[in-house]
Amino acid sequence: MAFGWIDEQADARRRAGLVRTLRPRPADSPLLDLASNDYLGLSRHPEVTEGAARAARTWGGGATGSRLVTGTTELHTELERELARFCGVEAALVFSSGYAANLAAVTALAPHGSLLVSDAGNHASLIDGCRLARATTQVVAHADLEAVRKALGTHEGPAVLVSDTVFSVDGDAAPLAALAEVCRERGAGLLVDDAHGLGVLGDGGRGGAHAAGLAGADDVVVTATLSKSLGSQGGVVLGPARVIDHLVNAARTFIFDTGLAPAAAGAALAALLRLRREPERARRARAVADDLHARLTAAGLEAVRPDAAVVSVRAPSADGAVRWAADCRAAGLVAGCFRPPSVPDGISRLRLTARADLTGAQIERAVRVIGETRP
Amino acid sequence: MAFGWIDEQADARRRAGLVRTLRPRPADSPLLDLASNDYLGLSRHPEVTEGAARAARTWGGGATGSRLVTGTTELHTELERELARFCGVEAALVFSSGYAANLAAVTALAPHGSLLVSDAGNHASLIDGCRLARATTQVVAHADLEAVRKALGTHEGPAVLVSDTVFSVDGDAAPLAALAEVCRERGAGLLVDDAHGLGVLGDGGRGGAHAAGLAGADDVVVTATLSKSLGSQGGVVLGPARVIDHLVNAARTFIFDTGLAPAAAGAALAALLRLRREPERARRARAVADDLHARLTAAGLEAVRPDAAVVSVRAPSADGAVRWAADCRAAGLVAGCFRPPSVPDGISRLRLTARADLTGAQIERAVRVIGETRP
Repeated sequence: MAFGWIDEQADARRRAGLVRTLRPRPADSPLLDLASNDYLGLSRHPEVTEGAARAARTWGGGATGSRLVTGTTELHTELERELARFCGVEAALVFSSGYAANLAAVTALAPHGSLLVSDAGNHASLIDGCRLARATTQVVAHADLEAVRKALGTHEGPAVLVSDTVFSVDGDAAPLAALAEVCRERGAGLLVDDAHGLGVLGDGGRGGAHAAGLAGADDVVVTATLSKSLGSQGGVVLGPARVIDHLVNAARTFIFDTGLAPAAAGAALAALLRLRREPERARRARAVADDLHARLTAAGLEAVRPDAAVVSVRAPSADGAVRWAADCRAAGLVAGCFRPPSVPDGISRLRLTARADLTGAQIERAVRVIGETRP
Repeated sequence: MAFGWIDEQADARRRAGLVRTLRPRPADSPLLDLASNDYLGLSRHPEVTEGAARAARTWGGGATGSRLVTGTTELHTELERELARFCGVEAALVFSSGYAANLAAVTALAPHGSLLVSDAGNHASLIDGCRLARATTQVVAHADLEAVRKALGTHEGPAVLVSDTVFSVDGDAAPLAALAEVCRERGAGLLVDDAHGLGVLGDGGRGGAHAAGLAGADDVVVTATLSKSLGSQGGVVLGPARVIDHLVNAARTFIFDTGLAPAAAGAALAALLRLRREPERARRARAVADDLHARLTAAGLEAVRPDAAVVSVRAPSADGAVRWAADCRAAGLVAGCFRPPSVPDGISRLRLTARADLTGAQIERAVRVIGETRP
């Protein structure tokens, strides 16, 4: 039977305890959320939801076509201009998702005969970009400068180093300034995904590349999401105008995808303007993460020191992580549970996210619940 | 210099007259739109924009996380239930874009050792899905049943035939019922992208697979967009519950992407409910397309007979198509202009879309402008 093999895979997953199920949440949950990527607590900010509502009323429910046909509104252009200005780059291009933005940037910046050097801890969308690109890909050990230098040294033609700025699973940051230096030694481009850095790192949340002094450099391209700190949906590529023009002409996930919905553009724009007026939100998200880490460590838990707003706590096993997250939920706390195959190293963890709007009491409660439910 | 090769490509594009530029549109354009994919004219329907606005206010500007962590709301579940019910399938899974839905379906349904048979006219997202999949891909001539039969006959393991139901460029439909028969002879699965069929084809707009009597079949999987007939953003995979469960567990663009924004889910749900109450919108879109085709043909233009709501008109050259579209625009009409590399056969055309809400006078005006500006 067609698709018969699916049942075998499903059985194998069940036996391994790795079945995933969706858990729809209500609009008003009594649970304390330490799992979302709403780092600045802006997703439900009235200006953000009103920005979405107003955009839908003004521009319609959808963009109605691909960006090159009817899908670019003046709202898209305004959002791109403001994102570029905020991040200190020449130009920006908005996509329907961060996944699409990464596929676009990686594939369009790696022509046939070029080399992609990709950090082993990179996000799935960067990995898929490498798989789709017509370049050769060399995967290097996580955050290993020497490995990057060596990989770039093996190649003559165009080369691009691809890395997250903040790795989603453990919340650790890439050594961006040093990576940029290695790239420059070799004449290679640097492409970084700042999904977990934008809004959290750098001056007023201008992101990881900005914090590393790389904003506006002509050999650096940054991607980010509009769905984390900016509380909306979508992705963006930020960089030199010539790179952005190139993406408009060459990136398949740009050319062949419907434009971002006006409501998502409106929400992201409103969040960006709010962040510009309240730059302390970025600092606050980092402070909450540091506080969370300190308290977890003090409670004897094995937590990774956060470089941004993600705090990862090791679990003894995949089963253990699932039980731990379930026990947290029963005690009123939503924690992320990362386990194979979603973790590059096979190690399961609770993944906690610091939000700028978490109170001291909420942090205390979260740490207490996590400690008490420890497997 | 890093990315230096981009300038050479840009020069080559300029010389070939193939530079693409974005043209931001205002909220209220005086131009007559025959280029968008808003087939049912629902994108600006007050119920649809209000559906978006209400969802943003109720659920926030974004889904806040991946669908498996915090990104599934009860609204997503409701939308998926209604989509499945409308299309006559067991289950549905919503994505942030149709592109993501296609990448998910193709890659997750084609394990290592399997065969993907892909129509040469397929959409870029299906092609990229085939490139990403761990299966072997065999591209067959466009809408060629014998070629499909032959390709499936060469393979022993699991196989899936992948095809658009309605091809975006020429608006022609795949011979779905016959393709399904060939697949069944061989025990292969059938995966069809109904992006341009949902809302237009079938009883009340239930789509191309429904029209072909394939809705609910256990060997058929359908993908579609929420950004065309449903006037919003997003994509959906529709099929047997076991296939949908499999995608939840295995599809990277599902697992590693932020969930669809609530506003987009709300807009799509409102559009679906409106279509259910006004099934004549689907028929009207097809009638407008037929009318458009008849009048264009009567005016001596080379238009492809439409199987859905897309009417394609041949242009003499890429340059000629660009000039033609520009002249149409100067005369108040927005027409799509498809040219290399966005056309599989290298032939440039004007691409017109019929909308259910176009009036007879508007159709007449469109045909007059297109005839008068003919290169």
